[in-house]
Amino acid sequence: MRILITGAAGFLGSHLSDRLLAEGHEVVGMDNFITGRPENLAHLAGNPKFTFIRHDVSNYIFVPGKLDAVMHFASPASPNKNSPVGYVNLPIQTMKAGALGTHNTLGVAHAHRARFLLASTSEIYGDPLVHPQTEDYWGHVNPIGERSVYDEAKRFAEALTMAYHRFHGVNTAIVRIFNTYGPRMDIDDGRVVPNFVKQALSGEALTIYGDGAQTRSFCYVSDLVDGIYRLLVSSEHDPVNIGNPVETTILEFAKTINSIIGNQGGVAFLDNERTEGDPQQRRPNISRATSVLGWEPLVSLDEGIRKTIPYFQQQLDAA
Amino acid sequence: MRILITGAAGFLGSHLSDRLLAEGHEVVGMDNFITGRPENLAHLAGNPKFTFIRHDVSNYIFVPGKLDAVMHFASPASPNKNSPVGYVNLPIQTMKAGALGTHNTLGVAHAHRARFLLASTSEIYGDPLVHPQTEDYWGHVNPIGERSVYDEAKRFAEALTMAYHRFHGVNTAIVRIFNTYGPRMDIDDGRVVPNFVKQALSGEALTIYGDGAQTRSFCYVSDLVDGIYRLLVSSEHDPVNIGNPVETTILEFAKTINSIIGNQGGVAFLDNERTEGDPQQRRPNISRATSVLGWEPLVSLDEGIRKTIPYFQQQLDAA
Repeated sequence: MRILITGAAGFLGSHLSDRLLAEGHEVVGMDNFITGRPENLAHLAGNPKFTFIRHDVSNYIFVPGKLDAVMHFASPASPNKNSPVGYVNLPIQTMKAGALGTHNTLGVAHAHRARFLLASTSEIYGDPLVHPQTEDYWGHVNPIGERSVYDEAKRFAEALTMAYHRFHGVNTAIVRIFNTYGPRMDIDDGRVVPNFVKQALSGEALTIYGDGAQTRSFCYVSDLVDGIYRLLVSSEHDPVNIGNPVETTILEFAKTINSIIGNQGGVAFLDNERTEGDPQQRRPNISRATSVLGWEPLVSLDEGIRKTIPYFQQQLDAA
Repeated sequence: MRILITGAAGFLGSHLSDRLLAEGHEVVGMDNFITGRPENLAHLAGNPKFTFIRHDVSNYIFVPGKLDAVMHFASPASPNKNSPVGYVNLPIQTMKAGALGTHNTLGVAHAHRARFLLASTSEIYGDPLVHPQTEDYWGHVNPIGERSVYDEAKRFAEALTMAYHRFHGVNTAIVRIFNTYGPRMDIDDGRVVPNFVKQALSGEALTIYGDGAQTRSFCYVSDLVDGIYRLLVSSEHDPVNIGNPVETTILEFAKTINSIIGNQGGVAFLDNERTEGDPQQRRPNISRATSVLGWEPLVSLDEGIRKTIPYFQQQLDAA
């Protein structure tokens, strides 16, 4: 297959590009680098099966040659308020990537009769009132909250994707991605994995907002990519959750990181300064992924963290 | 003021144009007539304070001259599955009006430093789990349901409006419009008021889907327009519900119509063929509108229906 992937220079987009190339496919990567980073694709320079187009997906997209699949992964994705690449600091770009970007990429898929795969998110469930979340849960999102620039953009993107499927017969798929971590995550992106690992590698106390009882579930990137690849080559149209259902409290997680790294800095509890609307708990129900795609995550949190540490160490050394 | 109103040839847009002109303002009306009807504006031909631009809001908007306000009312709005102008039959146009149209009209407001008013809807509450709905209710919407092309487009439009307010300092307002009726509603639009009045005027039984215990609240168009005008000239930024909180069951409502018109056809109960996601109950809490805008509806259902009948009678006679 020849596959267009938008957001190719992002954390997930670059790993997906690697996987697609490893499966023997041709990849056309697209990114405008507002949050994606060229170094994530540096190792693909010179690969004859990889082409790169620098382009903003919110503008009309033209790709020369035939495409068999279009994967729309372009969007700011960090909820970190204090990061310049956090979506609350790129609100219009985030909404354009979700609306115009999805519209344009669906148009490409339609024109090429290609399989379309939308990168959606657990954020469409918002601050969920149901645990764990199944795909038929409608979510609990504040339409005018600060995070709505991301959440509503992704909900809109899902609705538009289904509209193209129902109305234009486009062969669409939607993956709802839960928290993922691994190499190529920006160490300053503000999410809990890079934050904790950075602090632990620096010998500092791990900063916990609130009492640490809020839970998260973390999926290692190779597991996530495998689930997405299975969805791509399936004929599924309805949304599929991909994520790791093993739930851990933030406090437990901090202790695990400290123990793996051997950090003596302990933890520090700060007043809750979470981004407005940051969910207390979110965990995927992956029954659909298992039954429809035969997928389940294989990498334990311990193993995944060990695989990720060298990358963060490298970033710290380079800084 | 000089005011751009998109969707000016629609039911609400045309009444708003009349009200703005009556208040002494200049109006630039815009419509592409995919659901709006030229006859709704026919009486304004030759009015020196009214200009009309035929244009699709999902394409870049240019309006010559200075604007003081932009009101974005363009969108298919009928939930009727069986009507060619129902939004489920215009899914892509509906989503484009909500996303690209809102983006473009916000851009115009930003460039002109104009007040922006978004026509949002009670549909953003979806099939609500809270009654009556206050503005801080987050709603209950199926992001991939058939109606999501409208609901999610409007939620996206709200989120984008707030993003322009927060990020670009645009002076925005959001009105959440509940069920409204009155002259210039399309008699074939499939909503309950035109359906019932048409059937009653034809001496037929009024068709009730289900047992008729589902409730609705209906606002007469002059009340709605008054609330929207007050919001326009206020400095309010957060969403405001405008609608009539008097709740009536569909069965009671049918009996009222039959009695006003003197129809002997009675009612007929049909199996529930409601559009998927059609809410069982929706009723505005209007405390904010009352406290912030000094607004409340004045026209009773009985009075409003009597004022509306001649228009439907005319449409029937013309057909």
